[in-house]
This record gives sequence, C-alpha cells and structure tokens, in this order.
Amino acid sequence: MFLRNAWYIAAWADELGEKPLGRRVCNEPIVLFRDSNGAAAALTDRCCHRSAPLSQGTLVATGLQCGYHGLIFDGSGKCVAIPGQSRIPDDARVRSYPVVEKDQLVWLWMGEAGRADPGKILDFPYHNDRAHWPNKHACYPIKGNYMLMVDNLMDLTHLGYLHAKTVGGNPAAHVGAEMKTTRTSTGIKFTRWLRNSVPPPTYVKAAGFTGRVDRWQEFEWVAPSSVLQWTGAADVGTGAYEGKREGGFQFRLFHGLTPETETSCFYFWSCANGYRQNEPAATEQLYSEIAPTFVEDKEMVEAQQARMTELGEAGLVDIAADANRMTMRRFMERMIAEEVGARAAE
Amino acid sequence: MFLRNAWYIAAWADELGEKPLGRRVCNEPIVLFRDSNGAAAALTDRCCHRSAPLSQGTLVATGLQCGYHGLIFDGSGKCVAIPGQSRIPDDARVRSYPVVEKDQLVWLWMGEAGRADPGKILDFPYHNDRAHWPNKHACYPIKGNYMLMVDNLMDLTHLGYLHAKTVGGNPAAHVGAEMKTTRTSTGIKFTRWLRNSVPPPTYVKAAGFTGRVDRWQEFEWVAPSSVLQWTGAADVGTGAYEGKREGGFQFRLFHGLTPETETSCFYFWSCANGYRQNEPAATEQLYSEIAPTFVEDKEMVEAQQARMTELGEAGLVDIAADANRMTMRRFMERMIAEEVGARAAE
Amino acid sequence: MFLRNAWYIAAWADELGEKPLGRRVCNEPIVLFRDSNGAAAALTDRCCHRSAPLSQGTLVATGLQCGYHGLIFDGSGKCVAIPGQSRIPDDARVRSYPVVEKDQLVWLWMGEAGRADPGKILDFPYHNDRAHWPNKHACYPIKGNYMLMVDNLMDLTHLGYLHAKTVGGNPAAHVGAEMKTTRTSTGIKFTRWLRNSVPPPTYVKAAGFTGRVDRWQEFEWVAPSSVLQWTGAADVGTGAYEGKREGGFQFRLFHGLTPETETSCFYFWSCANGYRQNEPAATEQLYSEIAPTFVEDKEMVEAQQARMTELGEAGLVDIAADANRMTMRRFMERMIAEEVGARAAE
Repeated sequence: MFLRNAWYIAAWADELGEKPLGRRVCNEPIVLFRDSNGAAAALTDRCCHRSAPLSQGTLVATGLQCGYHGLIFDGSGKCVAIPGQSRIPDDARVRSYPVVEKDQLVWLWMGEAGRADPGKILDFPYHNDRAHWPNKHACYPIKGNYMLMVDNLMDLTHLGYLHAKTVGGNPAAHVGAEMKTTRTSTGIKFTRWLRNSVPPPTYVKAAGFTGRVDRWQEFEWVAPSSVLQWTGAADVGTGAYEGKREGGFQFRLFHGLTPETETSCFYFWSCANGYRQNEPAATEQLYSEIAPTFVEDKEMVEAQQARMTELGEAGLVDIAADANRMTMRRFMERMIAEEVGARAAE
Repeated sequence: MFLRNAWYIAAWADELGEKPLGRRVCNEPIVLFRDSNGAAAALTDRCCHRSAPLSQGTLVATGLQCGYHGLIFDGSGKCVAIPGQSRIPDDARVRSYPVVEKDQLVWLWMGEAGRADPGKILDFPYHNDRAHWPNKHACYPIKGNYMLMVDNLMDLTHLGYLHAKTVGGNPAAHVGAEMKTTRTSTGIKFTRWLRNSVPPPTYVKAAGFTGRVDRWQEFEWVAPSSVLQWTGAADVGTGAYEGKREGGFQFRLFHGLTPETETSCFYFWSCANGYRQNEPAATEQLYSEIAPTFVEDKEMVEAQQARMTELGEAGLVDIAADANRMTMRRFMERMIAEEVGARAAE
Repeated sequence: MFLRNAWYIAAWADELGEKPLGRRVCNEPIVLFRDSNGAAAALTDRCCHRSAPLSQGTLVATGLQCGYHGLIFDGSGKCVAIPGQSRIPDDARVRSYPVVEKDQLVWLWMGEAGRADPGKILDFPYHNDRAHWPNKHACYPIKGNYMLMVDNLMDLTHLGYLHAKTVGGNPAAHVGAEMKTTRTSTGIKFTRWLRNSVPPPTYVKAAGFTGRVDRWQEFEWVAPSSVLQWTGAADVGTGAYEGKREGGFQFRLFHGLTPETETSCFYFWSCANGYRQNEPAATEQLYSEIAPTFVEDKEMVEAQQARMTELGEAGLVDIAADANRMTMRRFMERMIAEEVGARAAE
C-alpha cells in the first residue's frame, strides 16, 4: 500500500542525459527523459503499439522514439509520429506523470494529476549552493520496503552496532544522547546533542579542534520519505546549542527513499561538507566515509525484509529507542488512511 | 494456449549426437536422441522409475539408458531392460512423440499421435543443397512467446529502427516499399520490392553490381511458426520482378519458432547464400552479419514480453504496418479455435 | 510434511565457532551458536525487535547480540539486554529449540520441546575415536527433498550407473550381490555380501590384499534420515561373514540428511578409515574419492526433484531394487501418520 498523492524522487537530475532512463516507482514501470527543451518528462515505460519498453528507445528532436517500430511520443505522452502513416489515432498515447525538477532532484507524482502541487516539494537548496555546500550524491537500489530505510533513519541507536566498524563510535554515547523531538506540519524534527564532549578523531582531523566541543545531529523527516540531516560540532560553549553553528565542523546529508515495489526501493542520498569548502578532497573524503556505511544499512534492511516477508511482523516488540520511528509510522498511517478514505468517498 | 496438432522444430539434425538432448517444447520436458539405427526419437524426459531426467542418461545399443538406476528405453518409450530383474512390467514405459527428420531439421508433433502427417511438414530443400545454397544455422533461446517473434517477421518496418546499427539502412525505404500480399492454404506470402534502386554497399561488395538494381524481399509464413525468406537483387530491368532471379545477389533465410513455455521459445534460423557459392567465406560473412541482427530481435522481444506479462495487451493500438501481422494472428486464432472446438466435440 | 518430533542434524560441532550460524531446518530459519560456556543453542533466526536475522549478529559474553540495534539474547531465547532502557519486557524473547551435541554433531529437535529425549539420538562413537577411526566430514546443500537422498542410500544398484566413472565398478556385481535385510526398532539394516571375490584395485592398494576376499557393505537406516555404513573386505574365509572383521580393509561412512525446505536439504556426511590409521594421507585419500561421488548423488537428486516438482509422482513404477527403499518409506509414512494422529487427538 503506497501513498499515491505524494512526490517521490524518480532520479537525480544528472541521471537524465542522452538516453531515456527506465525506473520502476510504486511498482509502475516509468521512463524518464528530457524533451528537446531540456524539460524532464515521465511516461509509462511501454509503447502503446506493441508494448516495447520506451526506455530502450532513442531521444529525437520531437520526443522519445520507440526502438522497435519508430513511433515517437512527446513529454505529454501524445504520439507525434507513426512511420508509414500520416494519421495518428487519438488513442495512440501513453500515460504521463507530473514531474518537477528541483534542487538537482527529479520529483514524480504518482497520484491524481490534478492534485500535484509543486509547492509541496521540500526545499534542499544546499544541492545548488556548491560554494558553501560542495556535495556528491548516489542512488542505491535496496531490496527492502522503503519505510524500513526511513525506520533506520528515525532510530540512530543502530550506529553503535550496525556501524560499529565504520562511523559508529561509542554505542553508549549514541544511546544516551540528549534528544529533543518536535512535530512539524509535514513530519517530525529531532535533534540529538552531545554537549561538552571530546570530538571524535575524524572531526579533529577535518576541522582541527583543539579542545572539547558541542556536537549536534539534527534530523527532519518530511513525509513520506525524505530525511534532511545536519550534523556538526563547534568549540564548546560558543553558541552551537543556541543556533550559532558557523565555523567548526558540519555537514549535511540528504536521504530520499522511493518505493520501487512493496519490497524494494531506491535510496537517493547526498553529502555536502560545510567545512574546507575549497578543497574537493574534503567532499571526496566525506563521501568515501559515508558510502560504505550506507551499504551496511542497505544490507541490514535487505536481511530484515527477507525475514518480514517470511514471518510477518507479529510478535515484534517496540523498545524505548523506537519513539520517533513510531511517531513517524503513525503519521504515515494517518496519511494513507485519509487518502484511502477520500478515494472511497468519491 | 499452444496449437497442439502441429509440427514444431525440436532441434537441428546435427544437435542429435552422442548424447541425448533435453529440450522443453510446449512446456513439456522432452528428451531427443537417435536410436542405434540413427532414427530420431522423442520421449518425455523423465524415467518412469524414479523421475530422473533421461536427458542425463547414456545412449546404449538398445536405446537410452537412465543415468540413475540403469533402466533402458527404446525409441517408442518402451522399457527394454531393468537391472536386477528379468520381468519388465507393461507400465514401465514413457510417452513417445512422433518425430520426423527432414531438411536438416527434427520436427516434433505435440498433438494427437494419430493425426501426425509427415506430409504436412514444409519443404526447405536448400538446407540439403549445399552446392547451390551453402548454409549455416543456429538456435537462439528467447525469453518471449514464440508468436512475438513471428510478429517481428511479419512487419519489416522494424528494420530501420531496431536494426538501425546493423542491417537496417534507410527507415523510409523500408516503410515505403512496394508490397504485395497473398494468402496461401498454409499461411501468407508477401513480397516487398525496391525497383530501380541504388544497391546497398553490402550488395555491391557481395555481387559486384555496377548500376541500379531491382531488389526483392519475399516472405512466406507457414503456420504455425515458420517463415521462409528469399532476398536479393538483380540488374535493373533484367526480369527479377517477373521471376528471373539468377545471377546477381540473393540469399535465403529460414526462421522457425518453437514454443518452449508461454513466455519463451527457441529461434531456429539458417542463412544460405545464392552467390559465390564456392567461397566458404561468403557463407561465413553472411552469417556473421545476420547473427548479431537476430540478437537485437531476441533482446527486443524479451523486453516486450516482460512488459506484456506485467501489463497485458489492453490499450495497445494497431498501425498500418501491422496488416500482415494481423492477418497472421487471425489465421492462428482460427486454427486454435478449430482445434479447441474439435476437442470439445469429442 | 516433515516429521516434527525427531532429532535432525543442524550442524557439525565444529561449525559453531566465533560467529553465529544461520541455517534453515524444516523450513524454519534457525540461528545456532555457543553461549560463553560453550553450550550449543538454537533460536529462531529473527530478532523480536525489528526482525533482523540474529545470524548477522555477534557473540558477546552474555549471549547473542543483534547486529542492528544491539539487543542481547541468551541460549534460552530470553532477551537479557536492550540498549537505552533497563526494563526488559517479558515478551522480549525469541523461540528456542532443544539442542544436543553428541559425537561431533549438533542435533536439533523441531517438535514439542517436552518430548525431546536426548536418549533417542543415535550413537556414532567413531567420530570421537580418531585413533581407530580417523575421519573427515562435510555438509553438502542439496536442492532436493531429503528423502530422495535417503532413497538413494537404500538402493545401491545406482552405483554401477550414476557412479560408473567414480566408485561404481561392475553394475552386475552390485545388482547381483547377496543381500540380507532385517528390521530394527528404529529402522532397517541390510548387508550386501560379495564373498570369495576379487578385490577391487583400490582395496588392494589400500590394504595390500594378495588373494581373494570376502567383501561386505552394511547399512543401517535410523529414522528419520540417518544412514550408518560399514564397508570392507577381509581375506577370504577368515571369518568376516561371521563377524570377524579386523585387519584387512574397512571404512565407515555416516550419512545424515536434514530437511531445509520441502525441496532442499543438507547432506552431512563423514568418512572414517579403519585401516592405516596412523597415516593422515589414508584419510585424505578416502575423503577425496568419496567427495566427488556424493556430488554425483547431489546432482542427480536435484534433477530428480525438478522433475518431481513439475510432474508429480503419478505413473512411476517400482522395481525389485526398490524393496528396502519401500520398506523405509512405509516406516516413515507410519511415523508421520502417528504424529499427525496424536496431534489431532489432543
């Protein structure tokens, strides 16, 4: 059961290039491409003639040409050319989906087209601000339901165990961190603080701390499946807790999960360094530390999905660390119930 | 739904050698082999003792010996030896299928044995006439319904798109070719003509044309799933159109499709060159040009099948180029309806 | 349909080391490990928090720690630690299974825990007696129902066919061997004799026979799925037939089959040489002769399973060589019927 009236990330903007891109979203086969004006478009990935996947076609001046018998479709899904005949019947078309390109991401609307409001797409301007936030991104396919990855991001106690060999650090520090959670209109926000603490070696190396620091991890979940993360540290008592976070060490992570099927998803993520912005090596190093960590998440979620597929969720117990995760899940359940209710009432 | 009372190609004759050959036809596991007299035989690929596949057995003087406990079956499926006992019970047998070897092909009858008439197997004597038609063949397994490959051969407009990088040539020339279609008692025949045209470079290279030519492509579909192709060119106005096609450039292709399952098939094809017959390199070159082209067909049909399996065929539209394809499909539907009706009436 | 109230082999004792071991038995995912006292334990391979497989966790002083969020379980399945909270709810536990380690094997009880009687586990002391029976073992995963492997061991006529290229020897000798079968309370026992026969070259090489020998193959099937084999030869007429089997050539094989799913199993086997016990090379050579033979069995059973899955067992015929196999199958059917009946009566 997917939330239909929602914007999902279909691709990184730079994935749409000289060839069309086939990608399954909410279990529907989609082809993404840019028309000759560069505008992103999304169609059902199936030619209406003989069912060939359009993602195996070619981009031509007037649109996307099927690779089998040469029919051409524009970004609205209308067929604009059929080889060997001048008349184009009205039913020669494929379904199109609303698409918006914003902040280096291509957002796709899977629900009723009339309700697709681009104004509801979240802002993440840091992707565009390479002077202050040089960044790098990836897309990991994961064989697990997309909400399992959101769960993962809502409960950071896993850092000390799952990521013990990578970014983990001290389990007790993570479990015992000071935490403040607030609701927002689109989700929840929580910040974890390690005040007056010894900076980890990687922080010292990256930012040259000489004494104790105030560390923060700020997470905002935006429904249905984006998580904006802002992490850093500043010299102790210099105002980070109150909001003054310049200088020192900080980075931002973007996490966007898109359902491919009920048991698989795409994990779009980026990292942006807010320190040593003039050194490309700093961005590279941040990326190279995070990339293998997220492979650990991917592998765990895939193992978890396999068990859930087999055994269901009966008998599972919630623990204290699940508080934010459960708030998030209830928020989602409410949205889905409302959507289903609205459809039933029509 | 397969047409059962029909001859399907099970193998190339030279595939039946020192070992039995397991091959699935119409979703039934079959083992093919030659008895000690060299006669081709086909049995259900399953020993009647403990269900071991006979295709993992050994050919011995008296037949095919199961590789597990040594039972031996002759070409009729009768068990002729059981190690450790002299009595062979009557029910120790496996099903056999009518088989005919003709023109280098092994034809298999999947329907009622009493209706298997070898006289209804098509003629393709060129396979045997290596002096005038030196030839070479292959078998491609394809993950698509066999009729999708017949569709492919009934609509040549795909040459300009799917085969743009191989044998394709000019899309407009293919789409605009003069075409004549006739019905036959076993299928349809259609010829495409490019009269008074400039010969393609490969034709010039193969046959040394110095001026314009009359080009033809003649296709005969024989139900259920064979297509005989005769293609060539002669100096313009020398009578090719009226039937005089000696000299110049010409080749024949044989296409035979056999259903493996509802969503997979075997593509048996050969090419025979009717020019420079004394040069084995000419046959090799023709083969090496065609083989990768047919891989393009295979890959497209597999992609098409995947979409059809998921989305069905609802909403697909026919275009002008589908005329022969639709005639062929209606012919098949009629044959299947007759067969189903006859079975129901029994 | 598995017999539930039975001891199955879950692992070789030396498979339980520094990491937990995940293994599916009777289609249930199980994690095997040793607690800090070295005692073997078996739990459902699924954390009761978020369904992560415990087999991906870590062994710590107090038990098995989940690799995702750090919960710890002891060998009884009780949760003994939840990071971030001191209270551990009663329902924080996973199912445990009775386990007994004996004769280098870890035995697992899949039925009602109250009926698990370690006294019913068979004896195979040779695994521990490395002075007289130096031995080596393996575990082969097989994509076939476990009873197909027991079938295999109950009908040795396959040696001359399936193993023709390895240990097979003369098919007629195997088929014609003198055989005596007796019932036991836990299964059946059968001995095959080749009295006053020429020893095979490998026997001569191993034991230095200079004349004719009396050869035996003794098999005991212990329900549900263990087979104890004792094979050898002694100088003719020196009393082997009457029970005096010292000296000469002899080895023991242990065969234990454990159902993984309805169509797959684990084949735990060992070989122990009762000759040249001081030479490790003798053990190695015996192992290296047997290992590829059992791969032949594995491959045949997998092919057999594929056909049975597709075509069922209707129409199969039993032959004389199936006598022991059928006795074994009827014994099993009776045990399963009794178990099902007892459950229904509760």
